Amino acid sequence: MNIVPIVLAATRMLMPVPAEITDAPGRMPVDGAFTIGIAGSADERLLAGVRRTRERLSRRTGLDLPALRTGEGPATLRIRAARLGSAIPALGDDESYTLEIGDGGGDLRAPTVVGALRGLETFLQLVEGDGQGYFIRGVRIADRPRFPWRGLLIDSGRHFMPIEVLKRNLDGMAAVKLNVLHWHLTEDQGFRVESRRHPKLHQMGSDGLFYTQDELRGIVAYAAARGIRVVPEFDMPGHVTSWLVGYPELATLPGPYAIGDKWGIYDPVLDPTRDEVYTFLDGFLGEMAAIFPDAYLHIGGDENNGKHWDQSARVQEYKRAHGLADNHALQAHFNRRVAQILTRHGKKVAGWEEILHPDLPKDIVIQSWKGPQPLAEAARQGFSGLLSAGYYLDYIHTAAKHYAVDPIAADAGLDAAQAARVLGGEACMWSEFVGPETIDSRIWPRMAAIAERFWSPATVTDVDDMYRRLEPIGVQLEDLGLTHEKNADMMVRRLAEGGDVEAVRTLAAVVEQVKVYARDDSRQSTRHTPLTRLVDAARPDSREGRRVSALVAALLSGASASRDPLRATFAAWQRAGGAIAQVAADAPILANAIPLGGDLATVGRLGDEALGYLQEGAPPTGWADAARAALDAAAKPKAEVELVVVEPVRALVAAAATRRP
Amino acid sequence: MNIVPIVLAATRMLMPVPAEITDAPGRMPVDGAFTIGIAGSADERLLAGVRRTRERLSRRTGLDLPALRTGEGPATLRIRAARLGSAIPALGDDESYTLEIGDGGGDLRAPTVVGALRGLETFLQLVEGDGQGYFIRGVRIADRPRFPWRGLLIDSGRHFMPIEVLKRNLDGMAAVKLNVLHWHLTEDQGFRVESRRHPKLHQMGSDGLFYTQDELRGIVAYAAARGIRVVPEFDMPGHVTSWLVGYPELATLPGPYAIGDKWGIYDPVLDPTRDEVYTFLDGFLGEMAAIFPDAYLHIGGDENNGKHWDQSARVQEYKRAHGLADNHALQAHFNRRVAQILTRHGKKVAGWEEILHPDLPKDIVIQSWKGPQPLAEAARQGFSGLLSAGYYLDYIHTAAKHYAVDPIAADAGLDAAQAARVLGGEACMWSEFVGPETIDSRIWPRMAAIAERFWSPATVTDVDDMYRRLEPIGVQLEDLGLTHEKNADMMVRRLAEGGDVEAVRTLAAVVEQVKVYARDDSRQSTRHTPLTRLVDAARPDSREGRRVSALVAALLSGASASRDPLRATFAAWQRAGGAIAQVAADAPILANAIPLGGDLATVGRLGDEALGYLQEGAPPTGWADAARAALDAAAKPKAEVELVVVEPVRALVAAAATRRP
Repeated sequence: MNIVPIVLAATRMLMPVPAEITDAPGRMPVDGAFTIGIAGSADERLLAGVRRTRERLSRRTGLDLPALRTGEGPATLRIRAARLGSAIPALGDDESYTLEIGDGGGDLRAPTVVGALRGLETFLQLVEGDGQGYFIRGVRIADRPRFPWRGLLIDSGRHFMPIEVLKRNLDGMAAVKLNVLHWHLTEDQGFRVESRRHPKLHQMGSDGLFYTQDELRGIVAYAAARGIRVVPEFDMPGHVTSWLVGYPELATLPGPYAIGDKWGIYDPVLDPTRDEVYTFLDGFLGEMAAIFPDAYLHIGGDENNGKHWDQSARVQEYKRAHGLADNHALQAHFNRRVAQILTRHGKKVAGWEEILHPDLPKDIVIQSWKGPQPLAEAARQGFSGLLSAGYYLDYIHTAAKHYAVDPIAADAGLDAAQAARVLGGEACMWSEFVGPETIDSRIWPRMAAIAERFWSPATVTDVDDMYRRLEPIGVQLEDLGLTHEKNADMMVRRLAEGGDVEAVRTLAAVVEQVKVYARDDSRQSTRHTPLTRLVDAARPDSREGRRVSALVAALLSGASASRDPLRATFAAWQRAGGAIAQVAADAPILANAIPLGGDLATVGRLGDEALGYLQEGAPPTGWADAARAALDAAAKPKAEVELVVVEPVRALVAAAATRRP
Repeated sequence: MNIVPIVLAATRMLMPVPAEITDAPGRMPVDGAFTIGIAGSADERLLAGVRRTRERLSRRTGLDLPALRTGEGPATLRIRAARLGSAIPALGDDESYTLEIGDGGGDLRAPTVVGALRGLETFLQLVEGDGQGYFIRGVRIADRPRFPWRGLLIDSGRHFMPIEVLKRNLDGMAAVKLNVLHWHLTEDQGFRVESRRHPKLHQMGSDGLFYTQDELRGIVAYAAARGIRVVPEFDMPGHVTSWLVGYPELATLPGPYAIGDKWGIYDPVLDPTRDEVYTFLDGFLGEMAAIFPDAYLHIGGDENNGKHWDQSARVQEYKRAHGLADNHALQAHFNRRVAQILTRHGKKVAGWEEILHPDLPKDIVIQSWKGPQPLAEAARQGFSGLLSAGYYLDYIHTAAKHYAVDPIAADAGLDAAQAARVLGGEACMWSEFVGPETIDSRIWPRMAAIAERFWSPATVTDVDDMYRRLEPIGVQLEDLGLTHEKNADMMVRRLAEGGDVEAVRTLAAVVEQVKVYARDDSRQSTRHTPLTRLVDAARPDSREGRRVSALVAALLSGASASRDPLRATFAAWQRAGGAIAQVAADAPILANAIPLGGDLATVGRLGDEALGYLQEGAPPTGWADAARAALDAAAKPKAEVELVVVEPVRALVAAAATRRP
């Protein structure tokens, strides 16, 4: 399963694919004499970026590489940034660069330091090895992003994420040329920032799990050093239960309030009728505006169900007095006042699609999450926007599915000026069901495919080529400390309680969490529920599932070389599936996986039988019907996961069923 | 290889084994209703310790456990500490506890909070599962440590270790009841602490890789919360090259000095003749004494080769003037003055065995590293001491080898009073060849076996039982964030460069780094050399090697059930060994592993042939001689590793050679 065919496509092993790439003659060796030199503009960002590049290259190649050189002297890779560019990254920064590798050396040129940093990531992805050593074959790249806003949302509200989670993910983001961390910092389940102005916010709203202001500044600096903006989100007027624990007087209905435990939409909402609420927000947002230098501050605005507003006589009276027809108008009224506050603090507003309202200033950014229509509608109304619908990482869709979504839908009907208002997109890592141990595996490597959608030309859409490149990029991302690969096996060992680890590993490799919002559909879990079950060890977009599907497709196209690996796989499933019940006997945490073990064994047996009939003979009467029924049963989700290898075996069964004696 | 037979030995799955343990009737369920209650004395240390216990239990069982209860009310596990004990742990603290588990509930009692923390770790290790759920079967434990000083040395000097490395290892230490972090903070290759008094120490001596004073205090607090002392080491008068970069005037010979790059013993040494040196040390040690609250401060004292002293006329004159016969006497003179300084700052001296000298005050602690004799000698002279000889983790010996070393050797000839001066021991993780990615795998799980030697009765020496327990403890340690298991596979993936990962994994599983000081015997590597080669991915005390040895031993004792797994293993070696050259063709970092691939294939083939002859027939003439010669060749180290499966196959070959047709 780990053998990746090294096909030298035009896209090489690059992700995201550059805007322009041409093969060129020559070969630049990466050996013990390889040096990087910086001429032109340089600041600590660039120096540190080059040092990190050298260390990563050194770890990968095992070479003790010479130190960075500065000045106009000779070097193997010569870097020249025309100017520093803004020290704090901003929307619209020039991130372009050119990279030319020829015989014995190469040149990376960029108009800004951030462009040079982007080029260094491309440089690292170009390195390959052969019998003579590591090297880069000749190439000319001229690269620039398609969209200026390419983000990842990390939700620290529902599950707190320690600082190192943010840091390693920022490193991963930089590796695939993302440039916005959308940091969701407050939720019904937790208020995660220290407020010195209103300290009961974090003291009473966080269970002690919050970021100090020093830590927030540290993350902003860490991101800026990698050319990544940090856009903080303080979701309002809904999603504020944790605010109200310490300050119930901000609420529409009287308290007391407690930190939310369960998931879903909460009723508590800020009272938009009281001046004290705006005074409070002025203080808090002013404090945050001083910590987060980005031009944008995200005010959320989603999922206010309006129930408490409807129950408040005061709110009803206020709506009448101000001629506000409905709650949407009332929220727009609230948003205008918040936008005025933010303007005073030098910030522009970003918000979810619910904030879209013609009365709002045109410099806001609308983030579409339910579907692409609000984005197009916003663009037509003259608002800028971002697409997140289609990029929800917590839905556990495949990389291919996300990859097919374009921020500018073909049928959006936007003219050029309107299309230009689509600034890009953001993938969202909502954290109901991820913690520090599992969040990386939900983000990576799928995020790299989405990053390509945001950066690369719209014409880059070859799914097979995307997956070919995703594999090595996934391994390279591990070098940054990301745990998307290695934690799964750790979790499997923990689950097995000393029992048959290989059986649990085999099962975990072919299941995926149920999709979209199907997990916890009984709404029993809370923010305290451990995320250590089989469903958590299972990873999205099962690699093993893809491998088996590809083998089956190949076999059915006549590639008989697929038969032996399939037979071995089906045997492994039968063995592993049969062993799960025994493992679970000493590991009660696996008790709900016992039926899955039976399913896996059945699917393995049916696959093996189908292979047999395909090779010679024909199935007896009734076999195919019984097989289909068994596969239907195996396809039903259990323990919050679904077996992803039912469909390829179904295809084998269907093919076998056509055989006649 | 992952199936651990659950043999309910008297020692259960406990490591270290308690002083007294007795089976008792009853069963305490650990289910969704399981509660922990604290009565008696409690402080934040105990509350936090119980919260951590609950979280670990929750992760392992998947249960959403109720929150901690305080006060005298009912709870499933009731904890009672008689008194808080010292908030900062100190040598000689009472760490004892009793743990009684009966039907439906249990009691943990301890004279101090630290004793209760120790008992909580035992509690976690007692949890097991069956068809009815998780539970602890009835037991009575009365436990206390054999030695009061049970340490791990971490060398942050040669390779800097980020704070999270320290934290996760402190968690691991607490899990196996270690109580001293010996923190080696300065070396020829790096000065790792911020000194505000003498800032050029860290500014010029560390390449920017140092701990701020806040970070140092943070680690002291983190350790104290787990009942672990932090003994800082500032090695002197040798091992000080990094000090001299900023302050060459402290040196015996004139500078300038540069941070050491290579490994080994350096000549630079403090000048013991100048008052300014003692004034400088007074300032620095006073600063450190305020940060580290422990009663002891370690001054190193090892490996001063005296060359610079011999070359200094001033030093020669000083020795004459003070009647100092040799450099050992001069160093003792230096040590006395340093000890006086430390006494003024409220500290006692700890130092390596070289500092042993009758003139020194009797309250110092001598740490023996070359052999056990200095420890016995120190004890006879009235000094307290620690054993580190035999516990050098960087020697890459087996856990069994370390386990066999006792701080009080049977032949030491100490009387009871002298033996009582042996305070315990410390394992040493010197960091020439470990970095943040690999250090955990060199420490764990072997450290757990050494921890047992320090804590458990001297009679606990069953090696098989130790390994039986080491396996599940190793998995439990992973839950603390330790990377000893999971990083190896990440490193293998990186090495393979997209090639046959399984082949590299198979090879890495059966090699170990060459022992003691054989690595880098050409002295080419530096502190910049990446630690990412096969030798780094290889782990000490190869589990796979032990598995194969056990199978072979069983087979040769007549257990024919070992034949099939051995045959499968030998086939895997032949396949993997044969594939290494191909992987290395695209992964030059593996070039030096190509001969190992050949060796592995050969060993697999010979093993398979021997199995065949053992089953039926007899080897042809010359086969055994040729096989032995091939095994001798395969046994030779290559790429700084040795193949650990040569010896079991040699045993098979020897047995097969006795067959006659």
